[in-house]
Amino acid sequence: MTWNLYGPTASEGDLAQLVGLRHKQFIITLKAGLKFSSHKGYILHDDLIGLSWGSQVLTHNGSPFFLLQPSLVDMLKYTPRSTQILYPKDIGFILITMGIAPGQQVLEAGTGSGAFTSALAYIVGEQGRVFSYETRPEVQKLAQKNLTRLGLLERVTLKQRDIATGFDEKNVDAIFLDVHNPYDHMMHVKAALKRGGFFGSILPTTSQVSKLLTALPRYEFAFIEVCEIMLRYYKPVPERLRPVDRMIAHTGYLIFARSVSMIAKTANDITEESEVNNGF
Amino acid sequence: MTWNLYGPTASEGDLAQLVGLRHKQFIITLKAGLKFSSHKGYILHDDLIGLSWGSQVLTHNGSPFFLLQPSLVDMLKYTPRSTQILYPKDIGFILITMGIAPGQQVLEAGTGSGAFTSALAYIVGEQGRVFSYETRPEVQKLAQKNLTRLGLLERVTLKQRDIATGFDEKNVDAIFLDVHNPYDHMMHVKAALKRGGFFGSILPTTSQVSKLLTALPRYEFAFIEVCEIMLRYYKPVPERLRPVDRMIAHTGYLIFARSVSMIAKTANDITEESEVNNGF
Amino acid sequence: MTWNLYGPTASEGDLAQLVGLRHKQFIITLKAGLKFSSHKGYILHDDLIGLSWGSQVLTHNGSPFFLLQPSLVDMLKYTPRSTQILYPKDIGFILITMGIAPGQQVLEAGTGSGAFTSALAYIVGEQGRVFSYETRPEVQKLAQKNLTRLGLLERVTLKQRDIATGFDEKNVDAIFLDVHNPYDHMMHVKAALKRGGFFGSILPTTSQVSKLLTALPRYEFAFIEVCEIMLRYYKPVPERLRPVDRMIAHTGYLIFARSVSMIAKTANDITEESEVNNGF
Amino acid sequence: MTWNLYGPTASEGDLAQLVGLRHKQFIITLKAGLKFSSHKGYILHDDLIGLSWGSQVLTHNGSPFFLLQPSLVDMLKYTPRSTQILYPKDIGFILITMGIAPGQQVLEAGTGSGAFTSALAYIVGEQGRVFSYETRPEVQKLAQKNLTRLGLLERVTLKQRDIATGFDEKNVDAIFLDVHNPYDHMMHVKAALKRGGFFGSILPTTSQVSKLLTALPRYEFAFIEVCEIMLRYYKPVPERLRPVDRMIAHTGYLIFARSVSMIAKTANDITEESEVNNGF
Repeated sequence: MTWNLYGPTASEGDLAQLVGLRHKQFIITLKAGLKFSSHKGYILHDDLIGLSWGSQVLTHNGSPFFLLQPSLVDMLKYTPRSTQILYPKDIGFILITMGIAPGQQVLEAGTGSGAFTSALAYIVGEQGRVFSYETRPEVQKLAQKNLTRLGLLERVTLKQRDIATGFDEKNVDAIFLDVHNPYDHMMHVKAALKRGGFFGSILPTTSQVSKLLTALPRYEFAFIEVCEIMLRYYKPVPERLRPVDRMIAHTGYLIFARSVSMIAKTANDITEESEVNNGF
Repeated sequence: MTWNLYGPTASEGDLAQLVGLRHKQFIITLKAGLKFSSHKGYILHDDLIGLSWGSQVLTHNGSPFFLLQPSLVDMLKYTPRSTQILYPKDIGFILITMGIAPGQQVLEAGTGSGAFTSALAYIVGEQGRVFSYETRPEVQKLAQKNLTRLGLLERVTLKQRDIATGFDEKNVDAIFLDVHNPYDHMMHVKAALKRGGFFGSILPTTSQVSKLLTALPRYEFAFIEVCEIMLRYYKPVPERLRPVDRMIAHTGYLIFARSVSMIAKTANDITEESEVNNGF
Repeated sequence: MTWNLYGPTASEGDLAQLVGLRHKQFIITLKAGLKFSSHKGYILHDDLIGLSWGSQVLTHNGSPFFLLQPSLVDMLKYTPRSTQILYPKDIGFILITMGIAPGQQVLEAGTGSGAFTSALAYIVGEQGRVFSYETRPEVQKLAQKNLTRLGLLERVTLKQRDIATGFDEKNVDAIFLDVHNPYDHMMHVKAALKRGGFFGSILPTTSQVSKLLTALPRYEFAFIEVCEIMLRYYKPVPERLRPVDRMIAHTGYLIFARSVSMIAKTANDITEESEVNNGF
Repeated sequence: MTWNLYGPTASEGDLAQLVGLRHKQFIITLKAGLKFSSHKGYILHDDLIGLSWGSQVLTHNGSPFFLLQPSLVDMLKYTPRSTQILYPKDIGFILITMGIAPGQQVLEAGTGSGAFTSALAYIVGEQGRVFSYETRPEVQKLAQKNLTRLGLLERVTLKQRDIATGFDEKNVDAIFLDVHNPYDHMMHVKAALKRGGFFGSILPTTSQVSKLLTALPRYEFAFIEVCEIMLRYYKPVPERLRPVDRMIAHTGYLIFARSVSMIAKTANDITEESEVNNGF
């Protein structure tokens, strides 16, 4: 049902990825009787069902494709989108920093095209749950379609609502806000997040980061961290190893904090006194 | 039992993190009758048990500490170690790129101090399993101790053996090698990894990367990627936002590939023709 | 005569830069009677001669342009080229690391399109001299044209020859090789460079760097440094300050060393024992 | 007289650099009759005078040192300092971006320990001049001492004064402000800088950058650029090439702009419309 619990061979109903030369990719759902067509020729689904994953197959006119299970990153890359989506380099670090794990209840806003929602649903697993808020109905509809295709919708509760009116949930394990003004919603984050739980956000500009840093201590968030991740690919040629020519310079600044209950000193004092983390 | 499935309050047997001013941290297992002592004073475990997570508590002489559940990253940072361990920035990207998910069977070598083993066990969850190989008995013993403390040992099969003799497993979902010569073991990786599955490795020097890039196509690994991740922290002060002064310059190059079955063309041909990934 | 010794107003014979909206640039040599034309309209050179630098001028149909002296970086950017040229980020660091200064005698190969040659000639000034070798006659011709246009040719001796046959010069202050196999020419570099002088090179791949690192100690070069420079631009909008979306990921690795005379220990020993420079 | 116009051998009065094993460095002025002493033993200046630069010499008890002319970067690194100084990575890019060249008149504030002053004086040469302002008399005194030692003082006019009262100079080729509030002094910068000339600054925090970006268009500065430079060193071992473990994460944001005269549109309009520079 979900795409990470495959058997060794491709079965009807599985999501499959066909990758041709020059890494041109297609993601399809296998269904007996259907035909996959590209400008390189066609392949019958019936010829794919039952094949071992990782096999190379040929179109009717001899063009080679690999039959693979799409990876999470492949799915994220090829998510149909109406909005900017989070990049894998950021998603991986967010998930591990916020300790997202099987069985957790996590909340996010906005849903957007559902890419990060998918990653959360993938990791919390069948015992976990993702609550995801989005204002725009047409955007939410696309996310729903994307999650359905990935077989992950049943782990997600989609809510179409402005988060300025607050969240319905209490005591969730983690909250991530990918909205332009997270600093305006910290009261609601405080109310929905369990004490000790992780809050995270991504923001493109330095002035937004500064505003969020000002808001966090007011709602007793401490252990605040701000960072950015740069990912550089290399040309994978053994005798001419070198970085690629161009790279992404910026996706956003990542901000993390934990909800605490203070006795007397303010969270701000704690932060000011802290020594800055240096990667480890 | 495991540290990510807490109730809202601290209970006997839970792993707890006490964080003082300047972020000085201690990780303890709560047990009635015990006493936590630091140079800032002592706290009775009995006074912690039953408290809400995220609470601020005072030592007998008034020094404030926060009572938190340790996050996965906290646990990785404070893993007692006899070897260099993977950094969260790399772990997060490895997990997401290789699509590690609840319920999977994954294999790694070497175990080392068990930090990456813990992260794998954390994500594969109770339905998944991690097989981890290590040559040195005393290193394996430390990993076992670390996994036990985190309540993750039951998800892990530790094997004390040289991987040059091969792996016992077949059809695992993913294999990660953190050894100095992964290129010498690709035959065994091929045999243990399911077709279509992800192989990953981390290597510190460019010549090791070149050797691995040479070995991969020989064993029909394709979709090879090489990258590195740089993480830069910022001083989280709203009106004086700026990067910290120093950062980690290098942990290692990350290499990923997928096991395939070729018809006629070699995996090398595929790689040569591919356009290089640029982050998305 | 040369473009860095201007008076306060634009004079006949000066190199001038016209920059329109959206930073569209044109570099011209001012000459009475000529007409500058663009798709935004025309301007008579006679209307520019005598104007203060930095002035805004209008074309015959009212499009605004700024009249500027082209900076060194502008000149480098707009150098007509038949080859890949060095980037300003690398040039600036090379010049300062090798201590290039007014009055020096410096040597480079290959000349290429003459961009780095221009930068060297700019800095060594009228009392200095640049010797520049290039194998391909048509490439050298372009460099000659570029240097002439900048008024820098008289500081440069262009030689059309394969450096495998050696250099004519002795005791030059610094040598920079921008060729694909500098490691094959170190004997000639040793012979032409004064003792204590700086050698520098830029190489795109890690295997070339390794080969050069092997060759350097054999010819008694010590104080070897390898580094790379990353430059990231920001969108200069005060209330939305943030990095641009994309950047150059790699131009080349920079390698520097100094020519020494050993007594007994090899330069290699010195290097092995050295502590690695960390930026300062 | 100045340290970049050496003969092939060390002469009395020359600045010399003695570099021992592990790159331990000493910079001295050669004078007959004196003795250089370190914990590795002593060397008579008389034994150094007349030696070829780059030679290896031994102390009285056999420890090897190299006799070198200090490079500009060496001099910057070992400048006695009472203040934070600019790093070579930034200095090189500033010099080339602002087109600093032999024969120019350039202005800077504050002088600080004189490191950047030295670099400017080095490049403008004997025909150029550097005007440098500093408020604190004791800091200025140290800069004077450092410039004297390098033989560069005669190219520099040191002024001990608060720049809030303006600059004495007019029509200088370039102005660089390394002060915490450059945005408060742009009126004076406008008055002292020739039209078309380059303004530059370095600032540690994002809020300072935003303030400067707001001030620049008000005084008709256009072609504004903001960037940062990251420098990463590698361990120069051929068969184990890899980056060093740690690096500088941040020195400052670099800001550049050119003084223009507008007709009607504001400089701000120009900036808003511009396409962002992407490295070349």
